[in-house]
Amino acid sequence: MTTETTPSPLKNDRFLRALLREEVDRTPMWMMRQAGRYLPEYRKTREQAGSFMDLCRNTELACEVTMQPLRRYPVDAAILFSDILTIPDAMGLGLRFVAGEGPVFDNPVRDKAAIEKLGVPDPEDELKYVMDAVRAIRKELDGSIPLIGFAGSPWTLATYMVEGGPSKDFARLKAMMYSDPATLHTLLSTVAKSVTSYLRAQIAAGAQAVQIFDSWGGALSDENYREFSLNYMQQIVSELPREADGRRVPVILFTKGGGQWLEDMADTGADALGIDWTTNLGNARRLVGDKVALQGNMDPCVLYAGEAAIRSEVRKVIDSFASGVHLSIEPGKTGHIFNLGHGIHPGIKPEAVEVMFDEVAKYG
Amino acid sequence: MTTETTPSPLKNDRFLRALLREEVDRTPMWMMRQAGRYLPEYRKTREQAGSFMDLCRNTELACEVTMQPLRRYPVDAAILFSDILTIPDAMGLGLRFVAGEGPVFDNPVRDKAAIEKLGVPDPEDELKYVMDAVRAIRKELDGSIPLIGFAGSPWTLATYMVEGGPSKDFARLKAMMYSDPATLHTLLSTVAKSVTSYLRAQIAAGAQAVQIFDSWGGALSDENYREFSLNYMQQIVSELPREADGRRVPVILFTKGGGQWLEDMADTGADALGIDWTTNLGNARRLVGDKVALQGNMDPCVLYAGEAAIRSEVRKVIDSFASGVHLSIEPGKTGHIFNLGHGIHPGIKPEAVEVMFDEVAKYG
Repeated sequence: MTTETTPSPLKNDRFLRALLREEVDRTPMWMMRQAGRYLPEYRKTREQAGSFMDLCRNTELACEVTMQPLRRYPVDAAILFSDILTIPDAMGLGLRFVAGEGPVFDNPVRDKAAIEKLGVPDPEDELKYVMDAVRAIRKELDGSIPLIGFAGSPWTLATYMVEGGPSKDFARLKAMMYSDPATLHTLLSTVAKSVTSYLRAQIAAGAQAVQIFDSWGGALSDENYREFSLNYMQQIVSELPREADGRRVPVILFTKGGGQWLEDMADTGADALGIDWTTNLGNARRLVGDKVALQGNMDPCVLYAGEAAIRSEVRKVIDSFASGVHLSIEPGKTGHIFNLGHGIHPGIKPEAVEVMFDEVAKYG
Repeated sequence: MTTETTPSPLKNDRFLRALLREEVDRTPMWMMRQAGRYLPEYRKTREQAGSFMDLCRNTELACEVTMQPLRRYPVDAAILFSDILTIPDAMGLGLRFVAGEGPVFDNPVRDKAAIEKLGVPDPEDELKYVMDAVRAIRKELDGSIPLIGFAGSPWTLATYMVEGGPSKDFARLKAMMYSDPATLHTLLSTVAKSVTSYLRAQIAAGAQAVQIFDSWGGALSDENYREFSLNYMQQIVSELPREADGRRVPVILFTKGGGQWLEDMADTGADALGIDWTTNLGNARRLVGDKVALQGNMDPCVLYAGEAAIRSEVRKVIDSFASGVHLSIEPGKTGHIFNLGHGIHPGIKPEAVEVMFDEVAKYG
């Protein structure tokens, strides 16, 4: 028994349809980190929970914060409240979130011996709290909108696992990459297996689409991106079940700073690519043709501006996608999911987000 | 009288020749931040000088640290020891370097009134210490290799001037960009005039090539990069004297993270583009054709690896450039200057740099 949810018919499926480049009545929308610190109600729940990981591990509260943005905004998808570092934490690296410093691992893995000892966590054991959250959220959503599951890319998880926390230039990990690529491949391979098993379990528990966050793939050279990041994401994509409850479960790949590699990303078999704001969305669409849908890509900093500027920038994003007509794809708005080009910043006012979503709903 | 140096015939001009895509006997090389903290002799001089700005302002010591890497490595160019923030400091923003925090401005400019009050500093008055350093270094170099002058791009300087220091997402500056672009254009315009006058003075004082560092242009969208960064760099390029002592003074543009915009950068009239390591150098060469030379682009983190890996990565960079044959350019190695894709990290061992330059000299 891997799922407790009884599938309800989905009332709003425009997000899933757009991911498969099917016709939609308007551009669907959601926002990376839509459940997060910019919301006062989130900060209140977070305080109630204790630490950030306490919040992730509390099924009821993780479900509550996932639902919070949905009460404010007419978004077309919910995203599981969790963190990309749950996997290395479940591997025994000891995750803590230190104020002002970010995530810290008490036991980083920095040599062959430590890396060879790592096992693939059981998603219904060490990571059961995540699956419980997925099941609870699906129940709470009750078929209103789809739920997105997610994981970090192996390369991105490896940056934290080797460096022991956030890093500016990934000196330790890159020293390993250049000096001892075989050991790094061992690490990435174990992490890729873990991500695959984790996402499979999220899908079994009720996730209706999944996104792989490659936050740091953009720090790699062309050649190394292919070998150390894309390669493992492709492996994960190829091993995920692509159907659940008789419906395709789309996979979205998002490499921040990956604008130079979109064609390769589109060839992985993913259904959609997340695009950051540095890439012209129309150009991206011309590059990938009819291979994938595109998700993005407003600069999150637009939300620091006033209402008129926010509305104007929303329209620019939608128009930019529409301008990317390609011989092999039909003109129109199909295949675009509006999103920010990166997660929302904690300092943004919730009212600015309201303006953004209102404009997408009207104009998109 | 703007210069005190008597031009000596240049003994090694392969750097200047390669910038103009003329024949060279081997690929010329230098390294961004080659005078810097990774060198023990630098750390000693820095301690002797006092603060970082004290070192920049001390003609003799600024000259000394510029020369230090030249005593160790057979580089083909020296670069003025200074900082991109000298201009806003000269405008009265009050620059300090705070340990662990980086540069801080006591008087950031955050509104129209403050921005409208800014003047263009006189390079032979408030910034005379920089010109004195240029003259002293030229004298000391005595025609051995050329001297590179430099400045920050207006957009990059504006990030520090508005944020007041380093920033993760440039929230204040981007709020201004989206809400009040006219005020930002006023700021960028004043800064561009200052950079032009500053680089003109460096050339008059003896700089034989100049590089514009656009460290943060890569944080912009396609459209905004053109409007708020490239536009002003182009203006500077068009207003620089391109000849001194009967020889062309080449201009190098370097936008970190600018791999998606190389064709536009090549159209500015610059002689060469700096390329970071995320861009494939062969692809870059195919894109820009015979418009510009290319400088770069080894990942600085390669220098954390062992000797064999460093040598292999150096060869890959040189081979990558050679692979970028374009119908409009002659095959061969002309038009490449070996460099890192970004400044050297302070934690690198000087011996690793020696291996790198040795391999360039042998293989390039």
